[in-house]
Amino acid sequence: MSGGLDSATCLAIASKDYEVHALTIDYGSKHSRELDSARNLAGHFEVASHRILKVDLNAIGGSSLTDEKVLLDTGKNLDEIGNEIPSSYVPARNMTFLSLAIGLAEVVDAKSIFIGANAVDYSGYPDCRPEFIESFQKTAELGTKAGVEGNPIKIIAPLLKLSKSEIIQKGKQMNVPFFLTWTCYSGEARACGKCEACLLRLEGFREAGIDDPIRYEN
Amino acid sequence: MSGGLDSATCLAIASKDYEVHALTIDYGSKHSRELDSARNLAGHFEVASHRILKVDLNAIGGSSLTDEKVLLDTGKNLDEIGNEIPSSYVPARNMTFLSLAIGLAEVVDAKSIFIGANAVDYSGYPDCRPEFIESFQKTAELGTKAGVEGNPIKIIAPLLKLSKSEIIQKGKQMNVPFFLTWTCYSGEARACGKCEACLLRLEGFREAGIDDPIRYEN
Repeated sequence: MSGGLDSATCLAIASKDYEVHALTIDYGSKHSRELDSARNLAGHFEVASHRILKVDLNAIGGSSLTDEKVLLDTGKNLDEIGNEIPSSYVPARNMTFLSLAIGLAEVVDAKSIFIGANAVDYSGYPDCRPEFIESFQKTAELGTKAGVEGNPIKIIAPLLKLSKSEIIQKGKQMNVPFFLTWTCYSGEARACGKCEACLLRLEGFREAGIDDPIRYEN
Repeated sequence: MSGGLDSATCLAIASKDYEVHALTIDYGSKHSRELDSARNLAGHFEVASHRILKVDLNAIGGSSLTDEKVLLDTGKNLDEIGNEIPSSYVPARNMTFLSLAIGLAEVVDAKSIFIGANAVDYSGYPDCRPEFIESFQKTAELGTKAGVEGNPIKIIAPLLKLSKSEIIQKGKQMNVPFFLTWTCYSGEARACGKCEACLLRLEGFREAGIDDPIRYEN
């Protein structure tokens, strides 16, 4: 879980029926403020445990989120988002995060992994597509002690086919504390309102007809 | 690449035909001495780049290599190794490492990933089996920009079906500097000669009829 809307809503869904061991990856992104949001959300939903695991993806770079040399896309139109893989694509991020989650699931003896991946708004991210998630689950069955011993870990992505505004509506229904979430990629004191993440969030709230409780620049 | 025999031999094979960008994962194992060996091997084979990437697997634990509460198996007979998944199994380790390697491959525009995984001596590790490697490659095709754009990254595991003694013989033929390698799990000044890794190494050299140049406790 990050500190964003999707993670918060996914956590609300998982908490309803499961004991949750939350895993946040601190991957050296420029918006480490998300970690504070993740901690606050974990506290709000009273998870059984919350680990923040450091992975130095800066050593790999190649994304505007992890590499100072790659600039963030700003000032795009909403129409342009999702047509191509954006500069914020972090190579193999969900594959790495899901692998770490599988490791944790084995250790805490969890039967399922919830991930807030979403294929609709971020169609530009190949590792948010259903076919990737399905294939990953098969690979994990073959590569883990749990899988080999006949207790495969199920990957549940409840938001995979929802639009951002549907996620916000769902979150609203489940009393997700949206004021605790953080979405902006640029990591300043207030959300920038211009990066692709802010644009999708703002548009999502607008479409859902719900007020976004966080504050933006200007 | 770690600093072990398999990584060293795999690096020798890759270096013969490819420009190599080496990736070592510092995952907080108890035998961090392997990192020095990895650096020395990277230098010896004059790789194009060598990254040491920290991943805090201690936050997950569950293995004698990453969790102080899990004891290392020592004093086993060779016959017992491989019959069950040993305490040194690190949950989802190869899946995590390969995911990170896929990310790096995308960034440096590499066409192939070499991994020194080996299915024979360590049949107890589910993530060293050929079916896992094949499935992972398919998943990576679906989950990466490179894969989606029609340039899938190939995973090559040249040691997968060799025994330890065959790996040592192959390494010998390719002038692998065995004196630079480090295998022992216990992380003391000299190799212990007793942990499962030392036992397999010693047996491999004995079977190959080659002298092991590193020094052991008594």
